[in-house]
Amino acid sequence: MVLDKINFPSDLKALNFDEMKTLASEIRELIIKKVDTTGGHMGPNLGIVEATIAMHYVFNTPKDKIIFDVSHQSYPHKILTGRKEGFINPEMYFKYTGYTAPEESEYDLFKVGHTSTSVSLAVGVAKARDLKNENYNVIALIGDGSLSGGEALEGLDYAASLGSNIIIIVNDNDMSIAENYGGLYGNLKELREHKGKSENNFFKALGFEYFYIDEGNDVEKLIEGFKKVKDTNKPTIVHIKTQKGKGLKLAEENREYFHWILPNGIEDFGKNVSMPENYTDLTKEYILNEAKNDPSFVVVNAATPGVFGFDKEFRNKLKGQYVDVGIAEEHAIAMTSALAKNGARPIFAVMSSFIQRTYDQLSQDLALNNSPATILVYWGGISNADATHLCSFDMSLISNIPNINYLAPTNKEEYLAMLDYATKKSTTPTVIRVPAISLEKTGMTDKTDYSKAKYNVVFEGKDIAILGLGNFYKLGVEVYNELKNKGLNPTLINPKFISKLDFETLDKIKDNHKIVITLEDGILDGGFGQKVAGYLAKFGVKVLNYGALKEFTDRIPLDELYTKYRLKKELIIEDVINSMNLVNV
Amino acid sequence: MVLDKINFPSDLKALNFDEMKTLASEIRELIIKKVDTTGGHMGPNLGIVEATIAMHYVFNTPKDKIIFDVSHQSYPHKILTGRKEGFINPEMYFKYTGYTAPEESEYDLFKVGHTSTSVSLAVGVAKARDLKNENYNVIALIGDGSLSGGEALEGLDYAASLGSNIIIIVNDNDMSIAENYGGLYGNLKELREHKGKSENNFFKALGFEYFYIDEGNDVEKLIEGFKKVKDTNKPTIVHIKTQKGKGLKLAEENREYFHWILPNGIEDFGKNVSMPENYTDLTKEYILNEAKNDPSFVVVNAATPGVFGFDKEFRNKLKGQYVDVGIAEEHAIAMTSALAKNGARPIFAVMSSFIQRTYDQLSQDLALNNSPATILVYWGGISNADATHLCSFDMSLISNIPNINYLAPTNKEEYLAMLDYATKKSTTPTVIRVPAISLEKTGMTDKTDYSKAKYNVVFEGKDIAILGLGNFYKLGVEVYNELKNKGLNPTLINPKFISKLDFETLDKIKDNHKIVITLEDGILDGGFGQKVAGYLAKFGVKVLNYGALKEFTDRIPLDELYTKYRLKKELIIEDVINSMNLVNV
Repeated sequence: MVLDKINFPSDLKALNFDEMKTLASEIRELIIKKVDTTGGHMGPNLGIVEATIAMHYVFNTPKDKIIFDVSHQSYPHKILTGRKEGFINPEMYFKYTGYTAPEESEYDLFKVGHTSTSVSLAVGVAKARDLKNENYNVIALIGDGSLSGGEALEGLDYAASLGSNIIIIVNDNDMSIAENYGGLYGNLKELREHKGKSENNFFKALGFEYFYIDEGNDVEKLIEGFKKVKDTNKPTIVHIKTQKGKGLKLAEENREYFHWILPNGIEDFGKNVSMPENYTDLTKEYILNEAKNDPSFVVVNAATPGVFGFDKEFRNKLKGQYVDVGIAEEHAIAMTSALAKNGARPIFAVMSSFIQRTYDQLSQDLALNNSPATILVYWGGISNADATHLCSFDMSLISNIPNINYLAPTNKEEYLAMLDYATKKSTTPTVIRVPAISLEKTGMTDKTDYSKAKYNVVFEGKDIAILGLGNFYKLGVEVYNELKNKGLNPTLINPKFISKLDFETLDKIKDNHKIVITLEDGILDGGFGQKVAGYLAKFGVKVLNYGALKEFTDRIPLDELYTKYRLKKELIIEDVINSMNLVNV
Repeated sequence: MVLDKINFPSDLKALNFDEMKTLASEIRELIIKKVDTTGGHMGPNLGIVEATIAMHYVFNTPKDKIIFDVSHQSYPHKILTGRKEGFINPEMYFKYTGYTAPEESEYDLFKVGHTSTSVSLAVGVAKARDLKNENYNVIALIGDGSLSGGEALEGLDYAASLGSNIIIIVNDNDMSIAENYGGLYGNLKELREHKGKSENNFFKALGFEYFYIDEGNDVEKLIEGFKKVKDTNKPTIVHIKTQKGKGLKLAEENREYFHWILPNGIEDFGKNVSMPENYTDLTKEYILNEAKNDPSFVVVNAATPGVFGFDKEFRNKLKGQYVDVGIAEEHAIAMTSALAKNGARPIFAVMSSFIQRTYDQLSQDLALNNSPATILVYWGGISNADATHLCSFDMSLISNIPNINYLAPTNKEEYLAMLDYATKKSTTPTVIRVPAISLEKTGMTDKTDYSKAKYNVVFEGKDIAILGLGNFYKLGVEVYNELKNKGLNPTLINPKFISKLDFETLDKIKDNHKIVITLEDGILDGGFGQKVAGYLAKFGVKVLNYGALKEFTDRIPLDELYTKYRLKKELIIEDVINSMNLVNV
């Protein structure tokens, strides 16, 4: 194997073009096997193999700095920078993260995972170089899909005026996760079709030097092109056309499916997996039904339809009532707010980790205008995810903005009632945290008025009250049952409201309860429990808050996190008993 | 006066061009007098008078919809849409806000004040129109300075692909608040110089129809131009060149000063106002001194140098060590993080209200990477500001992100020690909330290690502890003195740390205190006091949180807000006494 000779990028310099082509095939094979086993980003990595070899051949890393956007396409880079064992040896498959990680290698500059950050980060690296009077190349590698994000566009605008070396490689595979949307993509198409020589050029309009490489999966052509821009003293774009999924026919032909796959994604492709009733399907059904009856009902998302199960069939059914704005969450919130203000009935669906890109839009465009729009937050909760994709911050982010009613359903009927309330009755913004757990049913229609905070007191007892919010209501039930078994008569509450307190219920609780337990599936800081504590502590009621600590965890198993945060029935009971001994329950 | 005949835009249709020119002069005169009396945006409004008349002449508002960006240039619009009394009658000068406000008029669609939102909002309005099969023009009016914001760029990208009527008027006066920065502005210049016919065209590259009007302060030319695009079925840009400050010579020649002025700004122009020692000057002095000794020391801001007193003299002294990224806060945070990661020593200065545009960048680009960058937050605190420019949310936003050390100094020596710690010693991101009150001195050098949360226990007493954070430490002192006068012996604490709890001190407090009072100059939800309550409530300590409610207040006098929030010595004492009666202090 050629790869046997390659441990670090400097080893590449000794190879000839034929060997580099062989190396590309070898890397490709490793990626296909590894990703099919562990799951991960398939298409983006297969497309960027040659460009990664060429970058490391032409530039002198780590002195020259490469900054990856999202870094979901950094597997070939990892293989070439001392981490190939993580792709060769199945026992090491989980040793390295799926993103760049400075703690793994000096060839990785930043820990990233969210989109559209590379250009701005590269500008900062380059500016520091200039201030310190140093001399090397700073390269950002960004995919076409990521270009539409506000941070990337701000970064491009500024980078063009930097006045010194910065090389931005635009990896254009004509795809975001799904299709691209937006005017910029018309221009990229035009540029590809005219081999970089079209009349309109977005990058030149911003002031960049511009180079186009049509054969973005040809190592020789890439090396030739990169050599031309190496050591430039001007902000420069190298626009390369690549094939997403290159080398795996199925992935070349099904680029959306193979962007990111689960383990055994190749074998499972095309299989119809039958799933028990779940919130994803329920939501799609609700949307299709409403959209059929009301042409102003519209669903918006920002380039991640797969998160919500918005497959092609669903998209085709909705036609103009389905809007994908591309990677552009800020725009999505403002647009959704305005849709609602102008009499349409929009739902914006978003993954918890990505709503972080929109604080000011939530505050100013949506909340300040009190637009009766609906936002569905998916995957919210503590998880074993990468540090870059944690979903435990959304409650703290959203619930401290005025006017927004943030709701946490615990079962099918509540969820449907909340959807109905949000999209039909509400006069203010409603955000619903779609349960990230299996679907439960009560069998009874929920008739709650969700405009006013009203907790559901499921069992009324005394001395100890348990407030189990959203995903953690079930944990609340477990704690309740255990206390009952111990001969106590606690109160069990399903709060349902994340951002508003039900003062009436809390006032009742404070009078005949000594200990209040709050359970929430997210960080404690700025969350639900601290709001409850802030109110009840006035009266000297003991409040025990359970949730995650404010920290970035990185692929830590859920059970380990739950133990650390004491989010387990037996640990909670232990705390309650300790607490009871002090208050004489 | 021509204006006597104009009560609503429809009245304009009866005027001839000469009358419209006279009307423009009349409006200009009113604005100059009113703004010089009350303070407000001078230059932007003087520049847009003719375009506003032309828009309302050509389009049929309110059926046709105009969405203003920032809406700091909406004064002429207000005069033409039923609100002229607010500009004619000095007693009515404060009746209307300085921004669009739907509660004032059906001609105002959104409550806005932050930049770069108009295009995305207009897209939502237009899309709702299309879904409902309605028919009218949707117009966004956006200044050149606002174009560089991520939300605007995302919006433009998407708008270009909308496929139906949307007209974006780019009001190009070749200025942001200060100079423009970024590649886009090179293109705008090129377009202006070639009367819209240059080789590179940013807007055409995105796919827009593009029109250029060189005489943006000529009603006749504007009307001619707007008529051409009215009822278009394509996304269209009308690029108009206007003169900021038009009609007031001083404002035409001093565009940065006259962007926004205080009352009597005309008379005070050029006067050297002598100010007592203050945090603004202290910060500038610190920066200049550090920058002189270290070429890698660099200060970054996003288009609002005036907020920090970064005047031309200061900027010129710093040369390449001063970076204005334009309106691009997301880029600014990422760039600042990367500057720090690559060995420079950056400070990013930002107004509290505008840091809201960067949550994900604070989280991912900065905090996750633990970059030792410094951020200075100005104007943080409860205020009588417009609902769009409140500065009471920053603590709740920043202090719930892991790894960020958010500090609240209360005097000169602490502030300098924190600056030194942040820019010289820290290995993690530090944010400092620059006090928004007059400068106090202790006369003693502060030697605290700010890497570890350690509250300053100023007076150690018992039963009652007062935690007065940042701006409200002084209020804490007042409450302390009053309780002393009443024969009590309370504890007074200056916490200094917003985002981290000092568990050691809190553990001591809990043992011999029954009531803990927290005071913070911001919203309570997600803030400092609730963190303290979340910890102490576990032990049944009574905690009274004082701060603002989670709400958008709109130009409410500070005294009224303090009374409402009980942020006054006598009201707090009243609460404490009530509370004491229940706990037997």
